[in-house]
Amino acid sequence: MIRFESDYLEGALPQIMYRLMSTNFEQTAGYGCDPYCEKARELIRKECSAPNADIHFLVGGTQTNMTVIAAALRPHQGVLAAQTAHIEAHETGAIEATGHKVIALDSTDGKINAKQVEDNVLCHRADESFEHIVQPAMVYISQPTETGTVYTLPELEELSSTCRKLGILLYVDGARLACALACEGTPKLGDLARLCDAFYIGGTKHGTLFGEAVVILNDALKKDFRYIIKQRGGMFAKGRLLGLQFDEIFSDGSYYEVGKNEVRLAQKIADAFKKKGIELYYASPTNQIFPVLSDEQIKKLSENYSFSVQSKTPGGTVTRFCTSWATTDAAADRLIKDIEEL
Amino acid sequence: MIRFESDYLEGALPQIMYRLMSTNFEQTAGYGCDPYCEKARELIRKECSAPNADIHFLVGGTQTNMTVIAAALRPHQGVLAAQTAHIEAHETGAIEATGHKVIALDSTDGKINAKQVEDNVLCHRADESFEHIVQPAMVYISQPTETGTVYTLPELEELSSTCRKLGILLYVDGARLACALACEGTPKLGDLARLCDAFYIGGTKHGTLFGEAVVILNDALKKDFRYIIKQRGGMFAKGRLLGLQFDEIFSDGSYYEVGKNEVRLAQKIADAFKKKGIELYYASPTNQIFPVLSDEQIKKLSENYSFSVQSKTPGGTVTRFCTSWATTDAAADRLIKDIEEL
Amino acid sequence: MIRFESDYLEGALPQIMYRLMSTNFEQTAGYGCDPYCEKARELIRKECSAPNADIHFLVGGTQTNMTVIAAALRPHQGVLAAQTAHIEAHETGAIEATGHKVIALDSTDGKINAKQVEDNVLCHRADESFEHIVQPAMVYISQPTETGTVYTLPELEELSSTCRKLGILLYVDGARLACALACEGTPKLGDLARLCDAFYIGGTKHGTLFGEAVVILNDALKKDFRYIIKQRGGMFAKGRLLGLQFDEIFSDGSYYEVGKNEVRLAQKIADAFKKKGIELYYASPTNQIFPVLSDEQIKKLSENYSFSVQSKTPGGTVTRFCTSWATTDAAADRLIKDIEEL
Amino acid sequence: MIRFESDYLEGALPQIMYRLMSTNFEQTAGYGCDPYCEKARELIRKECSAPNADIHFLVGGTQTNMTVIAAALRPHQGVLAAQTAHIEAHETGAIEATGHKVIALDSTDGKINAKQVEDNVLCHRADESFEHIVQPAMVYISQPTETGTVYTLPELEELSSTCRKLGILLYVDGARLACALACEGTPKLGDLARLCDAFYIGGTKHGTLFGEAVVILNDALKKDFRYIIKQRGGMFAKGRLLGLQFDEIFSDGSYYEVGKNEVRLAQKIADAFKKKGIELYYASPTNQIFPVLSDEQIKKLSENYSFSVQSKTPGGTVTRFCTSWATTDAAADRLIKDIEEL
Repeated sequence: MIRFESDYLEGALPQIMYRLMSTNFEQTAGYGCDPYCEKARELIRKECSAPNADIHFLVGGTQTNMTVIAAALRPHQGVLAAQTAHIEAHETGAIEATGHKVIALDSTDGKINAKQVEDNVLCHRADESFEHIVQPAMVYISQPTETGTVYTLPELEELSSTCRKLGILLYVDGARLACALACEGTPKLGDLARLCDAFYIGGTKHGTLFGEAVVILNDALKKDFRYIIKQRGGMFAKGRLLGLQFDEIFSDGSYYEVGKNEVRLAQKIADAFKKKGIELYYASPTNQIFPVLSDEQIKKLSENYSFSVQSKTPGGTVTRFCTSWATTDAAADRLIKDIEEL
Repeated sequence: MIRFESDYLEGALPQIMYRLMSTNFEQTAGYGCDPYCEKARELIRKECSAPNADIHFLVGGTQTNMTVIAAALRPHQGVLAAQTAHIEAHETGAIEATGHKVIALDSTDGKINAKQVEDNVLCHRADESFEHIVQPAMVYISQPTETGTVYTLPELEELSSTCRKLGILLYVDGARLACALACEGTPKLGDLARLCDAFYIGGTKHGTLFGEAVVILNDALKKDFRYIIKQRGGMFAKGRLLGLQFDEIFSDGSYYEVGKNEVRLAQKIADAFKKKGIELYYASPTNQIFPVLSDEQIKKLSENYSFSVQSKTPGGTVTRFCTSWATTDAAADRLIKDIEEL
Repeated sequence: MIRFESDYLEGALPQIMYRLMSTNFEQTAGYGCDPYCEKARELIRKECSAPNADIHFLVGGTQTNMTVIAAALRPHQGVLAAQTAHIEAHETGAIEATGHKVIALDSTDGKINAKQVEDNVLCHRADESFEHIVQPAMVYISQPTETGTVYTLPELEELSSTCRKLGILLYVDGARLACALACEGTPKLGDLARLCDAFYIGGTKHGTLFGEAVVILNDALKKDFRYIIKQRGGMFAKGRLLGLQFDEIFSDGSYYEVGKNEVRLAQKIADAFKKKGIELYYASPTNQIFPVLSDEQIKKLSENYSFSVQSKTPGGTVTRFCTSWATTDAAADRLIKDIEEL
Repeated sequence: MIRFESDYLEGALPQIMYRLMSTNFEQTAGYGCDPYCEKARELIRKECSAPNADIHFLVGGTQTNMTVIAAALRPHQGVLAAQTAHIEAHETGAIEATGHKVIALDSTDGKINAKQVEDNVLCHRADESFEHIVQPAMVYISQPTETGTVYTLPELEELSSTCRKLGILLYVDGARLACALACEGTPKLGDLARLCDAFYIGGTKHGTLFGEAVVILNDALKKDFRYIIKQRGGMFAKGRLLGLQFDEIFSDGSYYEVGKNEVRLAQKIADAFKKKGIELYYASPTNQIFPVLSDEQIKKLSENYSFSVQSKTPGGTVTRFCTSWATTDAAADRLIKDIEEL
């Protein structure tokens, strides 16, 4: 059985495991105040061309999203997001549990655009009863999105300038950011740092054991952020483990390599599906692909592969196949061969 | 200027004012533990044919909704509601501020149906990642809805049996319930008590100065409800004021009379709009009507009347005219005359 | 039975009832945007010598406290208060339900002092683990306190200058403020406006049917306050009722008169207890007095009077007797006579 | 520099690192549904003689506490804890951020007793205004406490029977539980399972890289617990990492060995302080010791050791020295030698 149902099924890059081993007996200060975290922060600031950014390391994505949003918003404010967004659809109401509404915007491809944001905010401001309506105060997007699609640089620039014009925040969930960075025409880390108020660089799905790095650009969001991390349960005791992993993937460039490889293998598999005449439900250029399969095809492929089964469409069932940092060419090729024989 | 923009612009029925005056110097226990509250509770239980119902009096609708929902749900549970529902659209995120997601369902007329509820719940239960998704645990509807439409008795029966089959709660916001009761084919108080887990009978929009009566039928929701009222800021000190008002409107039947009169006058005005060829945006048989007016018509009517301006449609602007307990035939007739001359 | 167990057992001053009657059919805009609210705001601003103050009217005290605190604090911040404070001891965790810790300070008389505040804040700032501890960001006091005691002007000035030096907020709960104003040496409304960031003027216990007026002085707390009122269930539909009552008590000075009379009668009763050799548990110069009674005395007085029974002490049981706007000299004299005959 | 300021400064036991390495490329299901978690659950159930216990693995202690408490309590309920308790004093209000009050009880040694609990609960129930007061519904203790002290088996039995008699929950924070297990006369895992509604077995401070195992005994707390984990940000993607670590420490007994060794070394150091005439502020038989040092002693020891500086007392400054799974006899002996030369 080869697993393709998600991109967090294996451990970490060998060089990370090696460094965890080799530093295992070092004594370092707790809670992210160690030299490894400091070094990783410096590397990330440099990659982002953002010397004044605040960088914090957390363990997982939901934790990161709820911490950033709780830190940024006042009680009556909400966050605009696609109806398919992770915070809207797959975090068991973690954002609402901090007291904030997720204001869902229509989306067929997982993305929202500047016009939708502007329309919503202006409509709110024009409403006679505006004080009876949650105030939109932040835009949340994922890059890539939950459906694998990506924002181009011009799209992000337009979202950013719209948010700034409207005086609301822009926050980017980068759980799989390296895959977006591997695509042409997408914003690079420096662009994200220039265009967003905050974003996070995901490690869990790109070769670390765990860990997400929050990059805060907007000075107004920096104050007392560590209190909020602690309050929301995200203050990791042995901070070295987080710092060291981010140090590693940015020191040796493996962060980018992992993203490229995940995309390369996923797209190879996508091509095999397409060649076979199988529809891909979302036009994803990244490491998640969504073939629409018949019951028989699902049964056949399930013999040797695990993948995620999502929803019914007229043409069949939408499934999801993901590649990870650990996916090999051999595994992808074996799957491709079986696709060809469907 | 005659005001039609909402149904809470005047004070209270004269008989209520009289009783407030005549009891003003009486000393009664606070917090709803006085004989007036007790008498009102008995009357309501009788009207509902629900001798075991718990009845609590709160001041306003948002307060009531957030108290009931906070009392009923566990943290990971959410409440299904129409996208136009008051809790979704006009309570500044009061429900989310208690930590709970409002799960919005599509609706063009303000109503949701049993099938939508069942689909949502079954889809949640069938999802591989169900634990990553807010658990639907309650259905919230308004009777009448925010768009003036009403649920028929069979519709409510179907919603109720679906909820019971699925093991989720049914809660009805009755801010304008007397208007629904005044319509043919709608559930009566006894039906609501039989079919719902909880509902509230609104006073503010039906002739009291203020006040809403929560009727709790489901035993599981009764325990410690007064703690939650206090915690959410709804424990009114001089409870006599609430009890006395509900005592009055149910002792003399004025609650029902007010509803009938509001509906009669609103529908008279609606007929005038229709006769004039003016579209009514929602098919409301109750006390809110939604004519689609041209800019010129709005300008003309604004000279002598206030009303609410809501949204643009291709045919013009959706407006809202409401009648209240205090609306007179003279006022309605004057408006009708001016509609005829548009 | 004459009731002395609290000061919210009767209705409202006759002149308020009269004005509610005489304006009952007026149509006014909802939610506090009517001319009565506007006039009351102007009067209060004038009484406070605070032309730039924002004034909001809410229904009750717990609602007011939770709204102000939710509006003012970030998630990791807490509010310092006496262990006997209303928000700590008698609001069913309403503040915690907004996510904020009440940091309780020792108090034997219901008051806290500047040194306690400074010690707590400096201790927090000096702690190696400060980010693991709730950040004290506001001081809450009641004037008078829950035990009937009052802050003198110099005491409030010292608290205020300490808070400003430390960069934290000062908020005063004035549920019974008129009683403190009736005492010598206490801060007047203008002093409160000069020294606090926000405070509220209670109506419920001083002759209105209900209603509390929040006075916000600190510009940083003004923004979007009405959203928070709505979100916490405190946006009263028929705002006229609130505005008109505060208009009345400040137009005719009855607010101050009520306070004076409550204090005068309570102190007359206190003197009778003292003359009888009965200990008063707290040295309250206001309208709540706390005689320590034997079981027999409680039994005897309970025949004709209701009062609150609080806690056991070596000397007997602490009870509470309150006077209200409606307490008459005749009632007080009758009680005094019965005290003399104990 | 040898660090003694806390017990989470190093990585993990070598055998854990080895197993993480050797399984690094295995593909397992996410979110705790893998065979390693399953095996660890079985081992823990066996150690606890609790075949029906639900076991969940979370990353850190604050996260665990807030998840358990959010899952267990209704909104108006609070948790009784010592004023020194971790949830009261060192989690930045994480519990209040879930909406619940921590009801602090006096404690000089970090412990609370059955009488305190009973007094508080009975006092609440007897209060006329009980609905205005947070309802005590759970007791939280730490074993060992934050001051290093331990509950004996009879003490825990009394707490447990008191809680059961009163109908409230008992929850034990076992961040350093192995140290308590290493002491004589303390409850064993089977006792905890028999006496508590839930407790957690801490890994972070006993030789794992991270991870805490929640053991839920009370059936009423089991339902939907994983939803709450996800909602509070604690659903760890690569669950294998958690399961494997707990599998390891319970398979080979190293969990108990680590506790014993931590205690042995800490007590050896404690003896050295005592021999030197230095007061130990708390009578801790576990791995945290609290010598009261002079400024000069602090300066001297700081040359070669790091430790935590806590508070001033008349006799000097309270400091804290901790031993960890990685502390060696050589390190302890070196410190002891320097203590002798103070």
